[in-house]
Amino acid sequence: MQKDKIRVGICGYGNLGKGVEAIIKQTSDMELCVIFTRRPPESLANQTKSNIAPTTQIEEWKDKLDVVIMCGGSKTDLPEQVPEFAKIFNTVNTFDTHADIQDMVRKVDEVAKNAGTLSIISAGWEPGLFSDARKLAESILPDIKYHTFWGPGVSQGHSDAIRKIPGVKNAIQYTIPIEEALEKARKGEADNLTATQMHKRECYVVANEKDQERIEKEIKAIPGYFEGYETIVHFVEEAEVAQRQIKMIHEGWVIGVGIAPNGEKQVMEFHLKLGSNPEFTAAVAVAYARAAAKLNKERKTGAILPTAIPTDYLATDEQNEDYKYY
Amino acid sequence: MQKDKIRVGICGYGNLGKGVEAIIKQTSDMELCVIFTRRPPESLANQTKSNIAPTTQIEEWKDKLDVVIMCGGSKTDLPEQVPEFAKIFNTVNTFDTHADIQDMVRKVDEVAKNAGTLSIISAGWEPGLFSDARKLAESILPDIKYHTFWGPGVSQGHSDAIRKIPGVKNAIQYTIPIEEALEKARKGEADNLTATQMHKRECYVVANEKDQERIEKEIKAIPGYFEGYETIVHFVEEAEVAQRQIKMIHEGWVIGVGIAPNGEKQVMEFHLKLGSNPEFTAAVAVAYARAAAKLNKERKTGAILPTAIPTDYLATDEQNEDYKYY
Repeated sequence: MQKDKIRVGICGYGNLGKGVEAIIKQTSDMELCVIFTRRPPESLANQTKSNIAPTTQIEEWKDKLDVVIMCGGSKTDLPEQVPEFAKIFNTVNTFDTHADIQDMVRKVDEVAKNAGTLSIISAGWEPGLFSDARKLAESILPDIKYHTFWGPGVSQGHSDAIRKIPGVKNAIQYTIPIEEALEKARKGEADNLTATQMHKRECYVVANEKDQERIEKEIKAIPGYFEGYETIVHFVEEAEVAQRQIKMIHEGWVIGVGIAPNGEKQVMEFHLKLGSNPEFTAAVAVAYARAAAKLNKERKTGAILPTAIPTDYLATDEQNEDYKYY
Repeated sequence: MQKDKIRVGICGYGNLGKGVEAIIKQTSDMELCVIFTRRPPESLANQTKSNIAPTTQIEEWKDKLDVVIMCGGSKTDLPEQVPEFAKIFNTVNTFDTHADIQDMVRKVDEVAKNAGTLSIISAGWEPGLFSDARKLAESILPDIKYHTFWGPGVSQGHSDAIRKIPGVKNAIQYTIPIEEALEKARKGEADNLTATQMHKRECYVVANEKDQERIEKEIKAIPGYFEGYETIVHFVEEAEVAQRQIKMIHEGWVIGVGIAPNGEKQVMEFHLKLGSNPEFTAAVAVAYARAAAKLNKERKTGAILPTAIPTDYLATDEQNEDYKYY
């Protein structure tokens, strides 16, 4: 162990936690010290060679970690665990329940300020890097019209909704931007597009042949999820769905069009095309973990969002000595 | 005048200065107080209704401005003027001589720290936003391979080189990315591309017919500028070149491809397509001017680069109260 490496903990060992573990190994300035889990530690033993500790023993790691990356789910894990961990550690999470972010910041801010720790909230790519891209665009061109497109990428919520239909054995759903809508956004003509005009939905479903006609109808009628959307349903073998569930691709765009004082269009576009969504999200979280450790060393406390953090804090000290980016 | 607006000065009234003036009018939180010029102030009187002051009288504006946006040229104006202004004011510039940025930061840092002011260096889009995009990409994916493409956009240096050829009456040159190279970059296969494989050059030249064959040959042979590049020369009427000189389009891409621990490609792309290059550069400088004023209010001094500045400082207070970006 090098003395001056950033000492990192992980809480939660699902796809994201495993991604974070792999990414930390690739960094030059961080070391993974412990993985916290609610499962019996021995159940993880054949999955990882890292130290494992139960979440009931986090107190024992006080002052031994510079930051903990919270890798639980946004629905129930993070709202419960982040305030607990923030009492003891600097933390980073990729909380993605957009509507609850403000509330999360408020709650964690109080705990963290009292504890003298720093927590970075929603530090993935969406929300996270995309939030920063949207705010950057509007900071530079105040009357810019921007639109965000997602996919092709798996939507867990939509996949779950299909799986609840009687007769569905397994299913995976992709949200896909409509190409014409992307083109309209680039021309600054996407302003009146509705959600159903921006994205379509493609479903891969496993079911007996006799049920397929009914299932397809039922999928297309689910309000809020599929109703009104262009929806394509493929009935496939279990093996195909299983394979698609392993390879978690995703893609996204923030496209903004402003008008210069002289009337010309100014287009800003930020695009991610991810072969592995959880491993990219993990890489973003690890960079923000570096920032959390550095900022707290400078006495910054409370709960903050990615737009409050300069790129120099995401970078290593070595990168910060290099002018090649300029 | 609202008491709490950010009070801005402009130094230099060319394309960029005029763009800055127009952009400030569009902001809700800034006001233009004065334009400094080396020309006789009365010579600007019929171009602008703003206050005009000679650069010899900047001392009189001490404590009356929160930030000055330096709009002179990178070659001689900025290296001379920025250290002078930094003794009295917070400043922002769009200095774009890449090789001299480190030196500029060092020189201005000393002056600004002594004076208690803050200067932001190279706060345009290239260098500036693109520098931030390159560093962000490498902070998140340390082994990412990124490439920058520029154009179609006018290169002043290349246009000047053509105009020096005997017989050339006027000329404008566009640097243009080669489409195949862009596609290679997106696939992570652009690593061995040389400069001449990434960009081509298109020239619009005014000359008498008898000189055209010789001029085309001479253009294509200029070492460092055209030699080795795919170069297309069009001989056109003076009116066409004049029109192209008014409409200053530009475009650019930063494209990075990293490899996830599981072997999948992760692509990050930042793209600008500008109908007016000087007015976009002006808009970027104005946002960084807001940051300079706010950061200096928090006692930050010295010379810093855009990668040291969070998006929240580019945004207005009103934007910072809004969670819509998340």
